[in-house]
Formats: sequence, C-alpha cells, structure tokens
Amino acid sequence: MTIWLNGRLLPAAEARIDPADRGFTLGDGLFETIRIKDGATRHLPRHLDRLAAGAALLRLPLPYDFPALSRAMAALIAAIGTKDGVLRLTLSRGTGARGVLPPADARPTAMMTAAPAAHMTAPAAAVIARGTRRNEHSPLSRLKSLNYLDSILARQEAAERGADEALLLNGAGRLAESSVANLFLSVGGRLLTPPVADGALPGIRRALILERHGAVEAPLTPDDLARADEAILTNSLGLRPLLSVDGGPVGDGSAGPVLARLLADPDL
Amino acid sequence: MTIWLNGRLLPAAEARIDPADRGFTLGDGLFETIRIKDGATRHLPRHLDRLAAGAALLRLPLPYDFPALSRAMAALIAAIGTKDGVLRLTLSRGTGARGVLPPADARPTAMMTAAPAAHMTAPAAAVIARGTRRNEHSPLSRLKSLNYLDSILARQEAAERGADEALLLNGAGRLAESSVANLFLSVGGRLLTPPVADGALPGIRRALILERHGAVEAPLTPDDLARADEAILTNSLGLRPLLSVDGGPVGDGSAGPVLARLLADPDL
Repeated sequence: MTIWLNGRLLPAAEARIDPADRGFTLGDGLFETIRIKDGATRHLPRHLDRLAAGAALLRLPLPYDFPALSRAMAALIAAIGTKDGVLRLTLSRGTGARGVLPPADARPTAMMTAAPAAHMTAPAAAVIARGTRRNEHSPLSRLKSLNYLDSILARQEAAERGADEALLLNGAGRLAESSVANLFLSVGGRLLTPPVADGALPGIRRALILERHGAVEAPLTPDDLARADEAILTNSLGLRPLLSVDGGPVGDGSAGPVLARLLADPDL
Repeated sequence: MTIWLNGRLLPAAEARIDPADRGFTLGDGLFETIRIKDGATRHLPRHLDRLAAGAALLRLPLPYDFPALSRAMAALIAAIGTKDGVLRLTLSRGTGARGVLPPADARPTAMMTAAPAAHMTAPAAAVIARGTRRNEHSPLSRLKSLNYLDSILARQEAAERGADEALLLNGAGRLAESSVANLFLSVGGRLLTPPVADGALPGIRRALILERHGAVEAPLTPDDLARADEAILTNSLGLRPLLSVDGGPVGDGSAGPVLARLLADPDL
C-alpha cells in the first residue's frame, strides 16, 4: 500500500512516524476523512476549509497550500487506483520536546492514506452511550482532532451492548452526535440536527443537508428520539437510517421518505 | 538518544511508529510520566496500577507485566545515564484498519523515553482558561490518555496571556486542575483539592498528599482562589507554588508554610 507522507509517495512499510511526534504522544493534530467517488475527492474545498479553521485554532501552521494538497491527493488516488473509497488527511504538530506547550518552530507532519470503501447506507442500531459524554465546552468538539478516545469508548460500549453505533450526549444531557456521524431527526415534518454549540461536529454532509434540504439546528434530547418519524446518521462516507436506539424502534423501525430524498440528491 | 520500543533498546533515530498506529491516528492510548530520582523510578507501583486501570477501561491489553516493565525502565535509565529526570511510558493500541472500533486482535505499542529534568519548584503564574474546559462527564478525565489537546489549548492560551500555566474549569464551572498538574488550595487551615468527579486527574503525588498530609477533596470554584492563603500545583515532576491567577495574587503572593511542609517530606 502506498501512502503520502510530507510531500512524498512511498510504501506504507517504509513510512515512519517519529516516536517524538506530538500526534503520537499527545494527540496534537487534526484530520479529515474525504470520500473518493469516481476517482475524485468529494467536497474538497469544504474539507480543506474545515482543516484550515481547525489548524488556526490549534495555532498549527499548514505546511502545504490547498493546491499542493489537492495535487497530492490526486497523485495518491492514482497510485492506489481507487475509484470509490476514502482518503484520510492527517496533520500533526510534528516532533517536540517534552511538555504540552508546542514548540515555536513546529514542523507539522502531513500524511495521507487512501483505501477502497463503499458508500455506507446500511441501517444502524445504536445505543445512547452511558460511559462518556461529548464536551460541548471544548472547541475540540467542533474540530476533527486526533483526540478520538471518547468516540472509541462509546463505540466499544455499543459493541458490548449489541449495537453498531453509539449516540453521545453532551454534558447537559442533550444529543450531540454519534461516535462517527452527525444525527438528523425528522419530527412532525421538520428535519432537525443538534447545534454545533451542543457538541456536534460541523460535518460537511451535515452542512449540505442544512443548506439544500431545509434542515435546521435545534437542541434535541433523548425524548425527541421517541417523537421522531425517522433518524438518519450522516458523515462524508455514509448516509444511514438509524432504525433503533437502546433496543426500541425509531418511528416504525424502517427507513423512510426523508432518507430516500437525501439519497436521491446526487450533489450530497 | 536511546529509547525503548516494544521490548528493545534502540537509537531514537531508528525507532519507527507505524503510520497506522492508532496512537497517532486517533489518540488511542495512555501514558505515564514518572520521576527518576537518584537513578531510580519513584512510586512506580502506583504509576503502573494507574496505567493498568486505564488500560482496563480502554480494553487495551497490557503487552508486558509489571516486572518486565520495571526491568525495561532500569535498562533504559542505565543506558541514558540519567540520575534525575523523567521517564515516560506510552502505551497505544497499535495498528488498526480504518474506523474507531479497535481491532479484536490489537497488538499494543509500548514505548519508553527518558531525559534529564530537574524537580520543578519554580513559582507559577496562571490564568483560568477561557477557551476550553475539562470534561468531568468523560472517564478520560481520570486517565492519563493520549488525548491532550484541551491541555495544549489551555497552555497556549496561558502563554498568549502572559502566564506560564492554565487552570481548567469543568463544565459546571468548578476548578478541575491545571494543564499538567493537580491543584491544592490552603483555605482557613484546610488543604483542599478538587475531587476526581469534578475532572481532576487522580495524580500520584496528589494521592500521597491526601494520604500523608491531611488534605481532603472538596469542590472548588474560582471564588475559592480569592479565599486561599496558598495555592500549590503538583504532579510527579514538580511541587510549585501558584502565586498569581489572572494577574491577581493568591494569598499574599508568596510561597507559604504548607508548601514548605510538603517540600520537606522526603517520601513525597
């Protein structure tokens, strides 16, 4: 498998992350997961804008400009030969001496990997995570940072409870998102999604659904799941009906017309 | 510089972290920072117990037993020739395919580095971080996980505001700890520290102070800083007076008798 690391395509087996890389030692970095469709990245400008916003918040200099990243992605996709799949761009702070304060002269590590993957449309059965919550008081809830352990814990809990996804509440007990996706609920003819201020990642597909399909942000609680006609999980790689939560059906327990409408949108 | 990686001492320049290591891609792992004093680790059983508790919570198998880790530490300390310093033990999930759910057959990465470092006793000037908060609703607040970005953000904010440390509030607005240390306040003759349930890491030195110096856990707010005669920051590598917060003095702005008593305890 070929990967791209700091400007170079090379076999993954030859690629080395330095043991002092702060991405490894402190989770000090960001990533983007980008869909590859028909051999090209989808919604790349939005992904790069989000990456740049996150990097600015972390005071992490972007080591390549957008055209250079775009060219690197095209080269990697060509090398892998993937028509439909997923590209991951990882940006870490690079190496640093001990201590949490980043070095003033940080030289970030940039890495890209790509792999075949089908667009995920399979129904999901979720639990509401009991073991952890999303931190709406941290700006990290609005970034795709390398700090993914809360999502990992929630996903492990889901597996142990016989489900394949987990919904995370925020500190106030409101729904934030799932371990890897944004949540939409269709309630009384309105399509609702938790606000970013409640701990929802500002997902790219989430933004497109807000812009193009009349969805609106609204604080949501677990009680709203009981009122929902449909629940839908979205991320850049999937658009899935959420058919049950904590063992009980959402709506009538089958996929519905709102999902069908979203799946029919070729620009989503 | 020599490091220890997965059972082997080797030059750091030859050590390679796999680009697919989940420690790098998702922050999926833990670490311990252990003081080296007179050529030996301090309070090692407590550190290893905490590491094992964290690994159990993350369902992360420990690839070496305590005696093996202890022998590896001694070998690394001998190779480095450090009499007084710091040893860091990092444990990540190891490599994994895409996705947040860990592989069932995870083979963790274990790494140790060591470096000279003086015991830190210099006074600190802190700010209360405005940019982020600690998540007391997540079990990660009770582990030394690789997810350190909230602390990094807080520490960057401190530097930008002219301070050298940051205190983090939890979601409820109570004091949790600093970016890298536990907080103790001496108030009216009592030595108080935020409870673990408020988002304080169960620090090793914190535990020793609770056990040996009559300190007690108590919910603390920023208002308590104004009432405190002394504030002290503690971690395995330091015992520091906190002399100012947000530009105002704590107590009379100088180090006090409680700190002196703690510094005089050779077992701390």
